[in-house]
Amino acid sequence: MAWRLYTYYRSTAAWRVRIALALKGLRYEAVPVHLRKDEQLAADYRAISPQALVPTLTSGEQFLGQSLAIIEYLEETHPEPPLLPADPVARARVRQLALAVACDIHPLNNLRVLRHLKHQIGLSDAALVAWQRHWIVAGLAAIETLLAQSPATGRFCHGDTPGLADLCLIPQLYNARRADVDLAPYPVIRRIEAACRENPAFIAADPARQPDAE
Amino acid sequence: MAWRLYTYYRSTAAWRVRIALALKGLRYEAVPVHLRKDEQLAADYRAISPQALVPTLTSGEQFLGQSLAIIEYLEETHPEPPLLPADPVARARVRQLALAVACDIHPLNNLRVLRHLKHQIGLSDAALVAWQRHWIVAGLAAIETLLAQSPATGRFCHGDTPGLADLCLIPQLYNARRADVDLAPYPVIRRIEAACRENPAFIAADPARQPDAE
Repeated sequence: MAWRLYTYYRSTAAWRVRIALALKGLRYEAVPVHLRKDEQLAADYRAISPQALVPTLTSGEQFLGQSLAIIEYLEETHPEPPLLPADPVARARVRQLALAVACDIHPLNNLRVLRHLKHQIGLSDAALVAWQRHWIVAGLAAIETLLAQSPATGRFCHGDTPGLADLCLIPQLYNARRADVDLAPYPVIRRIEAACRENPAFIAADPARQPDAE
Repeated sequence: MAWRLYTYYRSTAAWRVRIALALKGLRYEAVPVHLRKDEQLAADYRAISPQALVPTLTSGEQFLGQSLAIIEYLEETHPEPPLLPADPVARARVRQLALAVACDIHPLNNLRVLRHLKHQIGLSDAALVAWQRHWIVAGLAAIETLLAQSPATGRFCHGDTPGLADLCLIPQLYNARRADVDLAPYPVIRRIEAACRENPAFIAADPARQPDAE
């Protein structure tokens, strides 16, 4: 199957899918969609992504949107190596960590929201950064607690192999640094990040390594 | 198994789980967490929900957070009736629709964000409603397109039985009406809502029927 991934190098949602594809050893063609040039709003892209968001994954017929839906699809169709543990409670834990990023941090800070806050609401650049920091800190503090209090946390968010929670967390830390969030209060998160940084799939998916990196 | 659900009658995230439990015929004890009285911020609730959000589901030992993680858990442990179709591409479609609500509409408009916009950013009540409408309209328009263009859409979002996409969509429409969003441009969504309104599980999960309804 020849995969095509509509992606933007700095999109943390697209980045999650790039990590998942790399962890599963699935090759794909990257089709850059330049978000800052509004290419996602073009009619031909909206025809495959009515939400006008990246990522979109396709093998030619179906166009799959929403990063976590795409990753669950990859998990179901290419189960090895697994990105979720086998036990239902453990799976719920990993999904909870992933959704704490994907629902409660990222959507508040993605490009379309920051643009709206700046241009429609009139936030200053300083207020915009304060907004980002507020939601990132709230989210990371809760995630740090969830990780620190659970014996299931290992070298990675769950056990000693990388999975769904890690591939959501790592891109979010990149955005945290761009917003100058102090990561010192999150030692477990930083330790997991260090482990991910040594993993070839995480290295390959890094924004700086993408064909559309600037 | 005796389930306990920490819930708030108007929380659309808790409402999703209430529908899922009802669809699967699972009885539970509702433990109200009064969000407007900040009960979610109390130390005893934060001990089980570090994000200080509802819903949380427990059977006494594990405390599961994040509505979609909880619902996937229920789906895996109580597969009948299914809330997701069997085919992986179809599952991705349903999850995409669910996440379009859960990631890209709801998190921008939940109570903690509206409060922050009002008290920290200083938005007027009118600007606050405009903010809500903006993201609800953007999300519902995309969902309407996804539903209208797919032959997989049936009496419900996917086929003729209610599932994960429906139980995200219906609570969001309640919030849309509270923000005076005109739903006329979304005929497929309105038709699906009418079907859900006849379903006993959706009726039982309605905010007005909850023990903490005001």
